[in-house]
Amino acid sequence: MSKPSHIFSPLAEQLEPEGAFVYLDLANEARRKGLDIISFGIGQPDFQPPRESIEAVKEALEKGNTRYISPLGLQELREMIARYVSQKYGVDVKPSEVAVTVGAKAALFMAISLLTRPGDDIIVQDPAFPTYECVVRYAGGRPVFVKLREENDFRLLHEDVDKALTSTRKPRGMIINSPHNPTGSVLEKSDVEGLLELAKRKNMYVISDEIYEDYVYEGKHYSFLSDPEWRDYVVYISGFSKTWGMTGFRIGYVVANEKVIKAMDVFATNMYSCPPAPLQFAAIKALELGIDWFKPKLQDYKRRRDMAWEELSKIPGVHVVKSRGAFYLFPNVQEALQRTGLKSVDELARQLLFEKGVVLLPGTAFPLWGGDGYMRLSYVLPEEKIREGLRRFREFIVEKGGVS
Amino acid sequence: MSKPSHIFSPLAEQLEPEGAFVYLDLANEARRKGLDIISFGIGQPDFQPPRESIEAVKEALEKGNTRYISPLGLQELREMIARYVSQKYGVDVKPSEVAVTVGAKAALFMAISLLTRPGDDIIVQDPAFPTYECVVRYAGGRPVFVKLREENDFRLLHEDVDKALTSTRKPRGMIINSPHNPTGSVLEKSDVEGLLELAKRKNMYVISDEIYEDYVYEGKHYSFLSDPEWRDYVVYISGFSKTWGMTGFRIGYVVANEKVIKAMDVFATNMYSCPPAPLQFAAIKALELGIDWFKPKLQDYKRRRDMAWEELSKIPGVHVVKSRGAFYLFPNVQEALQRTGLKSVDELARQLLFEKGVVLLPGTAFPLWGGDGYMRLSYVLPEEKIREGLRRFREFIVEKGGVS
Ligand SMILES: Cc1ncc(COP(=O)(O)O)c(C=O)c1O
Ligand SMILES: Cc1ncc(COP(=O)(O)O)c(C=O)c1O
Repeated sequence: MSKPSHIFSPLAEQLEPEGAFVYLDLANEARRKGLDIISFGIGQPDFQPPRESIEAVKEALEKGNTRYISPLGLQELREMIARYVSQKYGVDVKPSEVAVTVGAKAALFMAISLLTRPGDDIIVQDPAFPTYECVVRYAGGRPVFVKLREENDFRLLHEDVDKALTSTRKPRGMIINSPHNPTGSVLEKSDVEGLLELAKRKNMYVISDEIYEDYVYEGKHYSFLSDPEWRDYVVYISGFSKTWGMTGFRIGYVVANEKVIKAMDVFATNMYSCPPAPLQFAAIKALELGIDWFKPKLQDYKRRRDMAWEELSKIPGVHVVKSRGAFYLFPNVQEALQRTGLKSVDELARQLLFEKGVVLLPGTAFPLWGGDGYMRLSYVLPEEKIREGLRRFREFIVEKGGVS
Repeated sequence: MSKPSHIFSPLAEQLEPEGAFVYLDLANEARRKGLDIISFGIGQPDFQPPRESIEAVKEALEKGNTRYISPLGLQELREMIARYVSQKYGVDVKPSEVAVTVGAKAALFMAISLLTRPGDDIIVQDPAFPTYECVVRYAGGRPVFVKLREENDFRLLHEDVDKALTSTRKPRGMIINSPHNPTGSVLEKSDVEGLLELAKRKNMYVISDEIYEDYVYEGKHYSFLSDPEWRDYVVYISGFSKTWGMTGFRIGYVVANEKVIKAMDVFATNMYSCPPAPLQFAAIKALELGIDWFKPKLQDYKRRRDMAWEELSKIPGVHVVKSRGAFYLFPNVQEALQRTGLKSVDELARQLLFEKGVVLLPGTAFPLWGGDGYMRLSYVLPEEKIREGLRRFREFIVEKGGVS
C-alpha cells in the first residue's frame, strides 16, 4: 500500500510544469559546463522598477506596513487602478470592480477556477501560456484549442473560434491573450469586436489576459474592456510585472463585475489571505508616475525587436512574422529543420544550446498541439547580445548543412 | 439566461469567507459611529519584524532582487529553513524537502488540494481555522469533524478521532493545528504520538499546521515532524507571520517528502509563479538572528495571557481554560448567556460591540458545529487595554442581569 503522503489527487496532477523551465534548467547545466550562454528564453523585462517605487516600498516598511491587509489588496491601490484603467480605456471602472492579486498568475488561477464549471468547454489559444490549459483542466473544464495561424500573423480569428465551437457541447468561455505570449501577435480592434460578438452570441465569458498591453510597437492595443457590456462578459487581467519591471513583486490585478470580485475576495482569503502589503506601495507610486515612465523602454524594445527580426530573417530556412507586441518573436523553422535533418524543434533547441550556447524555446513548450516547427525568441537582451546570439544561430544552421 | 460572467463554479462556491471578517467589518462600522473600540478579534502579533529584517529587504531591493525566482522560493532560504527546522526538532530535513509559500495559507491550500482526492474523508478539528474545511470541500473531500472538548483543554484526542473514523468510508487524512486557533490548546507529546500511531494504522496523512509553534507558555511544543517516519505521513506547515511579525509579507513554508515538494513546485507555478522575492530576505535575516529574538516577546505575551485569563475568570457566568499556546483564550459563556437571556454567542458579540465597543469573536466564526457557547479572545493588546476591555465585558454581563 502506498504511504499516504505519496498519493496525490488526480485533479492536482493535471497541473503541469512550464515547459520553459526545462530549458532554463538545461541552460544552467550548459553554463556549468563552461558555455557562454546567450538566452532568448527570458520571460521578463530587463529593467528595474522605477526608483521612486523602490523608495516607496522602503518608506512603507519604515512606516510599519507589514501587516495583513484585505484579500483584495490595498484600498488605495484598488482606487488608483480603477482610475487608471478607466482613463486608459475610456471606461468607468469602480474600485469595487478591482482586485489586486499575487501576480496576473493568481488572477488567472482564480478567474478560471471561479468561472469554469466541471464539463465546461473553454476556448484556449494554441500556442498559449501553458497555465491556461492546466487550470482549465484543474477546474474540471475541457480546453478546446484554436490554432493561431502564421498567415494571420498568429491573431485569433473569431471565425476559427466559431468553427472550433461546432464540435463542443458546452461552450462556456474563452481565454484570450493579446499581446500574445509566445507569438507576439496583437489583436486588431475588429478582431476583438468579432470575438466579443461571438461571446455574446454564445453566452461565453472572455478572460482577457492583457499583461503585455503596453508592449505594442505599431498601432494601438484595443482592450476587451472597451466593450460597454464588459461587466457581463469580460474578466480583464493585467499587472505590474511587465510594464513596471516588478515581476518578483507579484502584483497583478483583475477588473470584473462586482460579483466576480466578491467571489475573488473569498477565493483569495482561502488561497493566500492577501497580496504582500509593502510591495503594493511600489505599484501605487508607479501609477502616480504614469505610463510616460515606460515610453523610452518601449522605444528600446522596439529597436531590439527590429534587430532581432532582421537577424532572424537572414537565417536560411527561417521565416519570421514581424510581430507587433509583447517581447517575443515566433520564427517558423520548418524549412531549416528539413534542410538540416533535425527531427524536431526540441532537438534544435537542445543542440543549439549545447553546441552554440544559445537558448531558444521550442514552440512546443507552449503546448503547441497545432504543429511543431516554431521557436519562441524573447528579445529582452542588449542589442549586441541579440546580434551575437543570432549570428551563432545562423552559423549553427549553416554548419548543419542548412544552406540550400 | 444568466450572463456568463455571473455564473460560478459550484466547486469554487464551496469556499467561504472567514467569519472573523464579518466582525472586523462590524467593528469598523461601530468605530465610524464614534465608539472607542477595544478589539480582542485580532489574529496577528502587534510587534514589527526585526529591524535587521527590514534592512535586509531594503538592501535586497537596492541590489535588484526584484525578479521572478523559483516557485519554491529562494534557494538560500530553503537551505536555511532546512537547517533551522532540523535543529529545532532534531530531524534531518533537506533543502529539497522545503517549499517557501505565500504564507502558511497558500501552503495549506496546496497541501490539502494536492493530497485530498474527491471522496476522501478528512479529519478536521471543530472548532478550527475555517480554511481547512473550505479547502477540503473545494478539493472534493469530505470534512469529518472531531469536537475539541473543554474538559480536555481542547486538545484533540486520538480516541475521539478513532471514534469519528468508524462512520467514515474513505479515511484519508487529518488536518491538525497545534498550538491551536481558536482555542489556544497545545497537544502533549503523547497526544501527538497517539495521533501519529492512528495515522499509521489507518494509512492517513497528517497536515500539521504549526504556525504558532513558538507561542507555547508552559511545557514544550512537540512537532509532528519528530516522528522518524514523517516523510511518509506528515506535511508540516509553518511560516514567518506569527513568530516574526511578518503577516503582511506572506512567507510560509512546508516540510514534506520530496515528491510533495515537487508537486508543490508545479502547483505554485500555476497558482502564483513564485512567492515575492525581496521580502524573503527578511526571512533569511530572521533565521540568522535566531529564536532568541522572539523570547522577550513570548514573555510579554505570557503576561498578557495570564492577565486576560484572570480578568475573564472574574466575569460572572464565564468559564475559561488557561490555554497554553498561541495568543487566544476560548471562554465558555454558556452560563452567562443563560443568565442574561442572550440567545447566542453571535448576539453576545454584536451587543458587546455596539454597546461597549468590545470585539470578541463568537466561536461559531470557526465553524463550530459542535456547540454554540464559546468566544475567541485574542490577547494581542497592551495590558491596560486588556484590563479595560474585560472590565467592559464584565460590566456588560452585570448590566444585563448576569449576576446570580
Ligand atoms: C501571457 C502571460 N500572462 C501572465 C503572466 C504572468 O504575469 P505575472 O508576473 O503578473 O503573474 C505571464 C508571465 O510570463 C504571461 O506571459
Ligand atoms: C491556524 C492558522 N494557520 C495559518 C494561518 C495563516 O498564516 P499565514 O499568515 O502564514 O498565511 C493562520 C493565521 O491566522 C492561523 O491562525
